[in-house]
Amino acid sequence: MNAADLGLRNDEARDAHALKSGIGLPVDVPSTALFTDQYELTMLQAALRAGTADRRSVFEVFTRRLPEGRRYGVLAGVGRVLDAVENFRFDAGVLGFLREQGIVDEPTLEWLAGYRFSGDIRGYPEGEVYFPGSPVLRVEGTFAECVLLETVILSILNHDSAIAAAASRMSAAAGGRRLIEMGARRTHELGAVACARAAYVGGFDSTSDLAAGFRYGIPTVGTSAHAFTLLHDTERDAFQAQVDSLGNGTTLLVDTYDVAEAVRTAVEVAGTGLGAVRIDSGDLLLVAHRVRAQLNELGAHDTRIVVTSDLDEYAIASLAAAPVDAYGVGTQLVTGSGHPTCSMVYKLVARAGSADPKAPLTPVAKKSVGGKVSVGGRKWAARRTDADGIAEAEVVGTGPVPPELVDKQLLIPLVKGGDVVAREPLETARARHIAARAGLPMSAIQLSRGEPVLPTEYA
Amino acid sequence: MNAADLGLRNDEARDAHALKSGIGLPVDVPSTALFTDQYELTMLQAALRAGTADRRSVFEVFTRRLPEGRRYGVLAGVGRVLDAVENFRFDAGVLGFLREQGIVDEPTLEWLAGYRFSGDIRGYPEGEVYFPGSPVLRVEGTFAECVLLETVILSILNHDSAIAAAASRMSAAAGGRRLIEMGARRTHELGAVACARAAYVGGFDSTSDLAAGFRYGIPTVGTSAHAFTLLHDTERDAFQAQVDSLGNGTTLLVDTYDVAEAVRTAVEVAGTGLGAVRIDSGDLLLVAHRVRAQLNELGAHDTRIVVTSDLDEYAIASLAAAPVDAYGVGTQLVTGSGHPTCSMVYKLVARAGSADPKAPLTPVAKKSVGGKVSVGGRKWAARRTDADGIAEAEVVGTGPVPPELVDKQLLIPLVKGGDVVAREPLETARARHIAARAGLPMSAIQLSRGEPVLPTEYA
Repeated sequence: MNAADLGLRNDEARDAHALKSGIGLPVDVPSTALFTDQYELTMLQAALRAGTADRRSVFEVFTRRLPEGRRYGVLAGVGRVLDAVENFRFDAGVLGFLREQGIVDEPTLEWLAGYRFSGDIRGYPEGEVYFPGSPVLRVEGTFAECVLLETVILSILNHDSAIAAAASRMSAAAGGRRLIEMGARRTHELGAVACARAAYVGGFDSTSDLAAGFRYGIPTVGTSAHAFTLLHDTERDAFQAQVDSLGNGTTLLVDTYDVAEAVRTAVEVAGTGLGAVRIDSGDLLLVAHRVRAQLNELGAHDTRIVVTSDLDEYAIASLAAAPVDAYGVGTQLVTGSGHPTCSMVYKLVARAGSADPKAPLTPVAKKSVGGKVSVGGRKWAARRTDADGIAEAEVVGTGPVPPELVDKQLLIPLVKGGDVVAREPLETARARHIAARAGLPMSAIQLSRGEPVLPTEYA
Repeated sequence: MNAADLGLRNDEARDAHALKSGIGLPVDVPSTALFTDQYELTMLQAALRAGTADRRSVFEVFTRRLPEGRRYGVLAGVGRVLDAVENFRFDAGVLGFLREQGIVDEPTLEWLAGYRFSGDIRGYPEGEVYFPGSPVLRVEGTFAECVLLETVILSILNHDSAIAAAASRMSAAAGGRRLIEMGARRTHELGAVACARAAYVGGFDSTSDLAAGFRYGIPTVGTSAHAFTLLHDTERDAFQAQVDSLGNGTTLLVDTYDVAEAVRTAVEVAGTGLGAVRIDSGDLLLVAHRVRAQLNELGAHDTRIVVTSDLDEYAIASLAAAPVDAYGVGTQLVTGSGHPTCSMVYKLVARAGSADPKAPLTPVAKKSVGGKVSVGGRKWAARRTDADGIAEAEVVGTGPVPPELVDKQLLIPLVKGGDVVAREPLETARARHIAARAGLPMSAIQLSRGEPVLPTEYA
């Protein structure tokens, strides 16, 4: 395994590359401006014409509920949201498309040509936990500049937070054993890059996805596939080829034919210094015990055991007593372990009654129908703790912040006057998540279904 | 609603744009070469050194099972796979990253610098249905050139086919009523573009996602959001603003406050020529009936009703008797209605015993453990039909094709000697899917859980 420096040290190479490369992605879309539902633009057009587009507005992102049985949510994707807001520009190509398709009129196109978000964004920092009603992001500016960002902000936060929540449960279940994200083949190729990033925030250690290493500096690792063994005339030939090329610190895949024979061959070929073996099928608990015993018998006491094969947080927990050193998780990670998206919404909660920038804000909310409850007004949030420093409630309010909660507020400045003010290394978000989770009541990390571990109180 | 020409007429604008744009995506990854698990590259390195990299090899993509209860699969993403194979190149930026991270050695980097897939790919055409064991894609060439493509091919087919399968069930349930894809905010922003594409293949009519319109020429549509109503001092002001700007053919959202009052106001403002109203909450069956009756009473007989709000194929089917004209589907579409990925694998099924290009192919397969059954050998597939032309079995074989099945073969040439030979408009795949589904036994479109509607027979 090949753990890279965790900083974003690839930035320079990437930027240099972006300038000189002529190779197009098969998903070419200019900027982030078109990751947008059409109605955002037609609402803008109507508001521009009606003279209401410049009313000062406050939008908030929150979820009405956690996925069924989940005890906490994990906010991920904040850094990607900041990138998306910065890159939300309408250049000639995009404007030409909108004109050609007749999606908006000329005055609107003219307005879009000069678009650059100039408002303020505050939010929970990346890696923080959240609960129903937590105002995880608050976007303020004119109606026009804020409404456009709805779709792309929700795409990022709903996707990334779903993956991070699953990752967090898996990392709690793994209890310090290493977790490798291996799900690229089970989800959209660029979604996979975001999955590796969110998994890292949620507590994973590394990824198999090279693009995630390239883009975000996440440590990348690799083992071997059955195809490699099958390519060679014998399993021994395959192992020999791998060790000759990659050294005996490599990870040999031992379940293509007979596991016991493969382990024997592996140690014969690589010696007792063999790095690791991977088991990808069968009863992992049983096989891991047998392989550990056999490795020890052969003197390969330090050879690690990596298990893969449709793992989720429950399978990981059930292997706690098995002699496993690392888990490789694919499908269940990138599909959010049963909950591939969150139900975050982006709602107008307050707006001015005129375009005057000094006009006071009025709270607004859709009438509650069919369980879609929204609470109007510009909100603050704080996490109240008990005498031992353990969280006991998520407090959300619209009035002044009570003095005892001033220091426990959750929203931090992310964008001020259009400028991003809260860039941070991914490592910071990862550490924040571990700390935030540790600050919750112990029952947070139970895997069984339950209620959110903190109540949300409205002050 | 704004239905664009269905051809790929945006290509020209897009290409022009790609050349002149300096705006980077927040997901910049050069080419598709890094959408790859690290082990593909380390296996390549080991095989290059062992002299086995040039052995002629056949890899096949197939699934061992359909998602539980599903009666057929829908292959989508084939066009995107062809793009990905063409763009799979290692340029200086990528090679620099691989070198810097020590992922592969210098001889391997040198080999990668000249990489261009030069083999053959055959497969089921896009939109075709498939069953357990169907060899939906077959990749042939040297081991080295084929093994590298595993991750990105699986990412695309597993993601897109999962979405298309859900879309197909929804389109069967909708029985000809219009279906709008609205799920962008619930999934990764670029995954969403692929979702809109796959939904279109599966039978949807349009999307709210502008990037999908831009990239693939899919018709885009838009309605309005609650925020727009809340921005204005009264609902009437909001409706008036929308109609003034977008004309009375627009779709007004009528459930922000009181539905009956909103419908009355809508027709007063827009007249009886109002295009449509959207209902996004409440008991849709009941509300749709009431709204239809009210619209008719007001003389707005041609005003359509669009419903949204957590729809899936079951909700769509349950609204068959309701006076609904169009369904907008979000979350359940982009999460595959409970099955957000497929379980397709990319397996080495045959390879030569030496690097001699004329060496015969030997079938290979991993030993079956824990239900992971693979069948070795280079396969053909055909769909046998009964006297009425209805499909009765998916026949998969490795020997010569029986004469009566020669005309019913499913695999077509996609890439020959590295050149893509099977580009087609998305519309063709969409029509193919409708036809393929219609050729299945009637029970295929039952929504209840069941077995695959065709048995897979191995000849």
